[in-house]
Amino acid sequence: MRNDNRRILLASRPTGRPTSANFRMVSAPIPTPGENEVLTRTLWLSLAPYMFWRMRPEKSYAPPVPLDGVMVGATVGRVVASRHPDFAPGDTVLGGGGWQDFAVQPGAALQKIDPTDGPPSLALNLLGGNGLTAYAGLLDIGRPQPGETVVVAAASGGVGSIVGQIARIKGARAVGIAGGAAKCAYVTGELGFDACLDHRAPDFPARLAEACPRGIDVYFENVGGAVWDAVFPLLNDFARVPVCGLIAQYTETGPPPGPDRLPGLMRAVLSKRLTLRGYISSDYAALRGEAMTALRGWLREGRLRYREDITEGLENAPEALIAMLDGRNFGKVLVRVSGDDAQE
Amino acid sequence: MRNDNRRILLASRPTGRPTSANFRMVSAPIPTPGENEVLTRTLWLSLAPYMFWRMRPEKSYAPPVPLDGVMVGATVGRVVASRHPDFAPGDTVLGGGGWQDFAVQPGAALQKIDPTDGPPSLALNLLGGNGLTAYAGLLDIGRPQPGETVVVAAASGGVGSIVGQIARIKGARAVGIAGGAAKCAYVTGELGFDACLDHRAPDFPARLAEACPRGIDVYFENVGGAVWDAVFPLLNDFARVPVCGLIAQYTETGPPPGPDRLPGLMRAVLSKRLTLRGYISSDYAALRGEAMTALRGWLREGRLRYREDITEGLENAPEALIAMLDGRNFGKVLVRVSGDDAQE
Repeated sequence: MRNDNRRILLASRPTGRPTSANFRMVSAPIPTPGENEVLTRTLWLSLAPYMFWRMRPEKSYAPPVPLDGVMVGATVGRVVASRHPDFAPGDTVLGGGGWQDFAVQPGAALQKIDPTDGPPSLALNLLGGNGLTAYAGLLDIGRPQPGETVVVAAASGGVGSIVGQIARIKGARAVGIAGGAAKCAYVTGELGFDACLDHRAPDFPARLAEACPRGIDVYFENVGGAVWDAVFPLLNDFARVPVCGLIAQYTETGPPPGPDRLPGLMRAVLSKRLTLRGYISSDYAALRGEAMTALRGWLREGRLRYREDITEGLENAPEALIAMLDGRNFGKVLVRVSGDDAQE
Repeated sequence: MRNDNRRILLASRPTGRPTSANFRMVSAPIPTPGENEVLTRTLWLSLAPYMFWRMRPEKSYAPPVPLDGVMVGATVGRVVASRHPDFAPGDTVLGGGGWQDFAVQPGAALQKIDPTDGPPSLALNLLGGNGLTAYAGLLDIGRPQPGETVVVAAASGGVGSIVGQIARIKGARAVGIAGGAAKCAYVTGELGFDACLDHRAPDFPARLAEACPRGIDVYFENVGGAVWDAVFPLLNDFARVPVCGLIAQYTETGPPPGPDRLPGLMRAVLSKRLTLRGYISSDYAALRGEAMTALRGWLREGRLRYREDITEGLENAPEALIAMLDGRNFGKVLVRVSGDDAQE
């Protein structure tokens, strides 16, 4: 049997930021599906910041990837062989195939992708985890009211770009934060945010304050670090802070030096009656149907735009993940593992 | 006109913990009510930790007491003269008369106390702000489920004692934290908490962990500081933290030295999907009716107990407040300003 299944394994755990030495590519036989299982060929692999945590030894909301285990990840694949009644060869499916050319997955863990929904990569973005993350965090935790100010970190990224557009649809003001002039121009020009600030500008805190003359009612937190520091003093009474990521803090290796800002945060939580709430999209499985219906509708009406940052070839996935953790991506990060028209 | 109205003023603002020098007692004429106003003689003055913040110059959720202004506070009073149609001399009313023998208050700011509700001081405790604070914070933010573990700081105090008893009524496990063996014995023996830990014990963090073998689902935060440090690592995924006070931090004068624990808190908010939410009882005016009905019912059924820590005489109110901020009270702190049977 030929070793035609390339797989990228976790070779070692990162200390600080990951490097390519943390990954290793191997070849393995194409696996065979057992009962109720499906063999898929990977078309698209989605990369996202949570993957850094899964590389680390600490327990987070999910166990770490074991050493020499295949890196985890959501994928869009084409069914090659099926021993599950709901799937047939040629179907396009959303699943968690990981960083490899072929995967055997339980049929129960797959969702068929409707070809009328548009490009299948949308299932890894607006019509998938990113869409649900944005919809649930903004609307269930953030609950923006018309006229309120919603500030979105990483506004040109997969989740942030959707959050700001939904905020606008709901009648709120959307103020984005992104890294660099090109991303900011995209966020206001293409995505329609009311303003976007470059967090690398030396006067970023002052500019953010100017862009939020009535303070901040909802801060969609997915970066942490210095962006949080600029946002925090602008939070209004009763502000809501959905926390779905802290990409700026992922590669910290220990607590930074003092002073200790924890007591000050707690004082503000009390005196401003803030709500801080962490979540991940899988906490909101019950909201998925409602979210997808709404997102599909807005997409068809042309009210949601998106941008994909595509890396060609599985072998380049490690560099793409590292670039994303450094903020060098521009849009939702996808790896094209094989061509969409490939048939087995 | 005789100066028969003793009033306690804010003489200076505290730096760090308040002292008696921050207060000054003066005598003033008994005021006369204008249209729609009511003159009350103060029977009971309620003391509570928020008063420290009102003495400070910083804006919190309410403006500071002005220098040489009468200290604010909730009171139970007897109506002496009324120019409001709903009130007549002899009525017992709940209001915000402040630290003085007599107060003129708008009738619209007063609530008549039902004599069948029990001692009128209950309107400053279980059947008033403390009751609403406990009910709203625990049930709207904490939302304990049967079998979950609810940890309550300042468990023998006005609010904490009610929180733990409601948690038990709702089928949760209540674990209290209090200062000293006598308070802990009261919290378990009299209030019926499942356990109570002395936060002054050197092995307090280990004992708290032992008392919460399944972790902590709800932490009712009203102290902050070292108690938070012991609770934090025990919080379960999806734990809820209503924040209604931070008495241990009130007298801090600046951020403590590092390391900076803010990034670690945010990481836990995300990975454990914690909810932290600050509130004060007046945010929950809409819940007052429901809360009072429930609390009255539980009180009549003998399911809620309470303890009052009574100081005799308005002149002793400053020392009583200072003692409370030092944790030297035992139960809800009240000042008896004049005898309940006093009539004008």
